[in-house]
Amino acid sequence: MKNYLEKVQNHMMALIKELGDDHILRLFKSIESGKMVRSRLLKLIAENETSDLISLSSIIELIHLASLLHDDVIDNSDTRRGKPSINATYGSKVSIMLGDIFYSKAFSELGKFDYEIVSRVAGSVTKLSLGEIVDVRLSEHFNHDENIYLNMIYNKTASLIETASAVGAILSNKDVETYSKYGYHLGMAFQIVDDILDIVASSEELGKPAMSDFVEGKTTIPYIKLWHWLDNNGKRYLESLHKKHLTPDDYNWLLKNLEESGGIRQAKDLAKFHSKSAINLVKDSPELIEIAEKLLSRGF
Amino acid sequence: MKNYLEKVQNHMMALIKELGDDHILRLFKSIESGKMVRSRLLKLIAENETSDLISLSSIIELIHLASLLHDDVIDNSDTRRGKPSINATYGSKVSIMLGDIFYSKAFSELGKFDYEIVSRVAGSVTKLSLGEIVDVRLSEHFNHDENIYLNMIYNKTASLIETASAVGAILSNKDVETYSKYGYHLGMAFQIVDDILDIVASSEELGKPAMSDFVEGKTTIPYIKLWHWLDNNGKRYLESLHKKHLTPDDYNWLLKNLEESGGIRQAKDLAKFHSKSAINLVKDSPELIEIAEKLLSRGF
Repeated sequence: MKNYLEKVQNHMMALIKELGDDHILRLFKSIESGKMVRSRLLKLIAENETSDLISLSSIIELIHLASLLHDDVIDNSDTRRGKPSINATYGSKVSIMLGDIFYSKAFSELGKFDYEIVSRVAGSVTKLSLGEIVDVRLSEHFNHDENIYLNMIYNKTASLIETASAVGAILSNKDVETYSKYGYHLGMAFQIVDDILDIVASSEELGKPAMSDFVEGKTTIPYIKLWHWLDNNGKRYLESLHKKHLTPDDYNWLLKNLEESGGIRQAKDLAKFHSKSAINLVKDSPELIEIAEKLLSRGF
Repeated sequence: MKNYLEKVQNHMMALIKELGDDHILRLFKSIESGKMVRSRLLKLIAENETSDLISLSSIIELIHLASLLHDDVIDNSDTRRGKPSINATYGSKVSIMLGDIFYSKAFSELGKFDYEIVSRVAGSVTKLSLGEIVDVRLSEHFNHDENIYLNMIYNKTASLIETASAVGAILSNKDVETYSKYGYHLGMAFQIVDDILDIVASSEELGKPAMSDFVEGKTTIPYIKLWHWLDNNGKRYLESLHKKHLTPDDYNWLLKNLEESGGIRQAKDLAKFHSKSAINLVKDSPELIEIAEKLLSRGF
């Protein structure tokens, strides 16, 4: 796998070199490559290492990278993959435009493939942008609608993972629906686990203060579950903490109630449901099962 | 033409409606449609009004709109097409993500076309993003390299106009090279005229203070010509005004020297050269000639 991921990195680099701009190439090189989950999935599902596979992996990684560059501006993030973000180092202008360059270069490459692949990949970029804009909108007020939240994380996080899996199946003539669903469940589990870690992991593990999501206005599953469990006074109190700087007392009140209400447990159950649903779809692939299992063991 | 542009607007609206998000649709409707120069060119060159033509016009307008949304964030622009910009009204987060949604929706549609069209359109999106990032980079210091500047405005402004013209020719089996060049010259003339107007037009005509480009760090052709004309002391003085708030004295010094040095005249000559080169390529089309002529009459 390591060898494959290196080939994808090299292909991405070759695409960026085609732009003929040394400054852009240096910026690209300065970005950590991350775990390349989407490329791993593509390879594990497609199996045969073809030039089409490497090309599509590179396209999807460039799209993911572009979305992270724009996310960092949206969220004012200073760090990304343990290094200062492009946004923090070079400013939001460079982040936005570099993201646009990666998107458009990815789309140029994508145009070489059949329409089924093009429409799936481009469609998931629309979804992830839509997810991000809804994420921003939901953060303005305390959102307590679970379905709206789940639809948002599907668009923002799960759709590109779903697409990577589907594309892997298309390339190897496997059942697209099955692998698409596998990617969907994996993506949902991934985001819900991430949401739980923001509450239960320590600041050191997170590299940022715990409950940052809530301070930024994001009411993830545990907060939504807690809201519904509280009485009217409790609901008002919870809403009064939304988007505020949290004192140690606020933090302790939240943690205690997120546990007592069963909010955290229910979010864990939902993550487990998605992880198990993913596993049930790929019973014959130990590697794909392992990815879904490892996800859950990150936090609990 | 008016009828055609309405059809393009309606098709763009239909594409946005497919997203199924009322909020996005309202944002789209709130944006002024502008002059739709790229669609006019496409129609004038392609002539026959086919569904492919309407679709490609919509794609190119969506791409243009997306680039403006990102430009407004980059340039901190408060107004666009005479109305408050999305950036000013809804904030930069919404501008960035709405731009991404328009880009990706345009690319989804684009995937239905042949690779020659896909690669031209996607390639020009890469160019315009690259142009914008170089524009930001050049603004950091006083750039006095004319070739670098011209290459930047080719990428940022002319490339999409060039592509719109080329696509029109492809759809109607005309000579792609000829119309591609026509679009290139038109785009270059357009940007250079815009640069001159920023200096010679009144604040009322511009809707912003004159010489905003220079205050933002952009050294357009007249400033570059002036720099080369000045002696060493003059060069240092000109550089000392760069990116500064301009007093009335500074403004008068600049205007006087931009005229005396011949900087403005030389920029006008360059715009005329591009306009005439465009006209020479389309001698049999009065409408295409008129577009190139009107460009010049905007400012002088």
